Amino acid sequence: MGRRKQVAVCGPRECTEEEWSHAYEVGRLLAERDAVLVCGGHGGVMAGASAGARAGGGIVVGVLPEADRVNANGDLTVALPTGLGEARNALVVNAGDAVIVVGGSWGTLSELALAMRAGRVPVVQLGGWRVLDAHGRPPGDVLHARDPGEAVAMTGLWT
Amino acid sequence: MGRRKQVAVCGPRECTEEEWSHAYEVGRLLAERDAVLVCGGHGGVMAGASAGARAGGGIVVGVLPEADRVNANGDLTVALPTGLGEARNALVVNAGDAVIVVGGSWGTLSELALAMRAGRVPVVQLGGWRVLDAHGRPPGDVLHARDPGEAVAMTGLWT
Amino acid sequence: MGRRKQVAVCGPRECTEEEWSHAYEVGRLLAERDAVLVCGGHGGVMAGASAGARAGGGIVVGVLPEADRVNANGDLTVALPTGLGEARNALVVNAGDAVIVVGGSWGTLSELALAMRAGRVPVVQLGGWRVLDAHGRPPGDVLHARDPGEAVAMTGLWT
Amino acid sequence: MGRRKQVAVCGPRECTEEEWSHAYEVGRLLAERDAVLVCGGHGGVMAGASAGARAGGGIVVGVLPEADRVNANGDLTVALPTGLGEARNALVVNAGDAVIVVGGSWGTLSELALAMRAGRVPVVQLGGWRVLDAHGRPPGDVLHARDPGEAVAMTGLWT
Repeated sequence: MGRRKQVAVCGPRECTEEEWSHAYEVGRLLAERDAVLVCGGHGGVMAGASAGARAGGGIVVGVLPEADRVNANGDLTVALPTGLGEARNALVVNAGDAVIVVGGSWGTLSELALAMRAGRVPVVQLGGWRVLDAHGRPPGDVLHARDPGEAVAMTGLWT
Repeated sequence: MGRRKQVAVCGPRECTEEEWSHAYEVGRLLAERDAVLVCGGHGGVMAGASAGARAGGGIVVGVLPEADRVNANGDLTVALPTGLGEARNALVVNAGDAVIVVGGSWGTLSELALAMRAGRVPVVQLGGWRVLDAHGRPPGDVLHARDPGEAVAMTGLWT
Repeated sequence: MGRRKQVAVCGPRECTEEEWSHAYEVGRLLAERDAVLVCGGHGGVMAGASAGARAGGGIVVGVLPEADRVNANGDLTVALPTGLGEARNALVVNAGDAVIVVGGSWGTLSELALAMRAGRVPVVQLGGWRVLDAHGRPPGDVLHARDPGEAVAMTGLWT
Repeated sequence: MGRRKQVAVCGPRECTEEEWSHAYEVGRLLAERDAVLVCGGHGGVMAGASAGARAGGGIVVGVLPEADRVNANGDLTVALPTGLGEARNALVVNAGDAVIVVGGSWGTLSELALAMRAGRVPVVQLGGWRVLDAHGRPPGDVLHARDPGEAVAMTGLWT
């Protein structure tokens, strides 16, 4: 039967309603596919994805920057209070067989960049910020999805 | 209903058969109590506890030192390839509402020490190494269990 | 007299000759001002900055991703083999009273993003990549310098 | 001429006067040998070693658990506010060509254990706690020094 897929979902603690809905739907679709959702465990996009995955009966892992669970959202199956601060962002993306980024913030961008730096798995972006190299061109092969369904499909984990 | 308890189980990659059996039984008893097992994800005591927890239908999280899953044991529900090396030991113990240590090794001792340093949760030892302060006395209140059942009871999580 | 200033210099391992020269000059100027240079300890921009700082008689700290020094450049006064992988990027930027970014790469962008996320110190960019938010606007107050002298001045540490 | 040696000195924040004096003397002797002292950057043994090294004109690096320098002792040449919490203990010992442990505490023991786990460099203990395996025997080749001079000699870095 093999092991479950794991997908990292990244996004800002403060997000728009649309981003929250997108994150929720991404989480729900992942749970439907029996994937484990890994996220930063806080609010905003992380909470949206966690809520969606939990509603879909999935397992949700929150990799928290704090050494305790005070800031954990309420939909985590497992909370990992790392105590590493923002260095935990590297762990969130390392945990994914694919990474889906919803919306933008500096913390989110660091996760996108770390995922591209690791270079091992598909990185899919749904909305959010854009990165341009010194020539004004996108510097890598970040995939851009138009909606949650496309984002999940673009991970290539269920083809 | 509240959140699931999480228990960190620590122990050496190379262990005796008795230690493996103890770890397996600890894992099984934790799963029976619906606790999430968090461990280092490797072999030996970690594999024994993971196997026991999985047999009991529990969720098993392996916090790996490597950035990939190559060394993960086969019974993890979730693998977190941290890429942190032995610094990940701090994360294993931070994740527990209690810590159970089976057997001894330098890596295991670092986890016991980090758990006592954090000072937030019960730390229960089943066999393994002993620590004495400069006066030849045990320097803290590590609990010593005689068997897996007592170790799980001593966590105080199900009283 | 007070403590020495510390400046984090970030940039890609593979860089253009101009970026190397810029990094060298930044390092030299920082050493001239008696600042400690903190960098990732590898080649490219990190090596350029280290060489410049060393030539200027400064102290150079390399915060390495590996657990050993094999990949350390030859101009470090102190090598810190963290064993943390790319999670070490958070440490490089945390160590700076200001952060100067020369050139661009995904690893470099993660450092820029983590520095902006921490939000505590001036972040100055010399060339390299650009970030745009969902409205096509720069999402924060990254400072953009035209040359090494301006980059060092923009840190505001010697006004 | 080759690179400077680096020695990690570990010990509790709260220590006896004798431990502080021992740490001071270790720091002074290391500076005399042109070694870089790496420590946890806080008070107690760490402050003693830092003061001794600084008095001897040496370079002192403090690898702090916090993300800022508030708790740094006053004798650091370089402060690295890691933000990693106690996971930073792994970095302190990874940075040493040898590790000297003065006095005992749970945090200190975690560093001793991580150093022995890494198994790459001499680990010298001056006073402090003792570790016994399941058979009541010392489980490894930790070296035990009677005084600071012997501790520095036992590192084997200046033979």
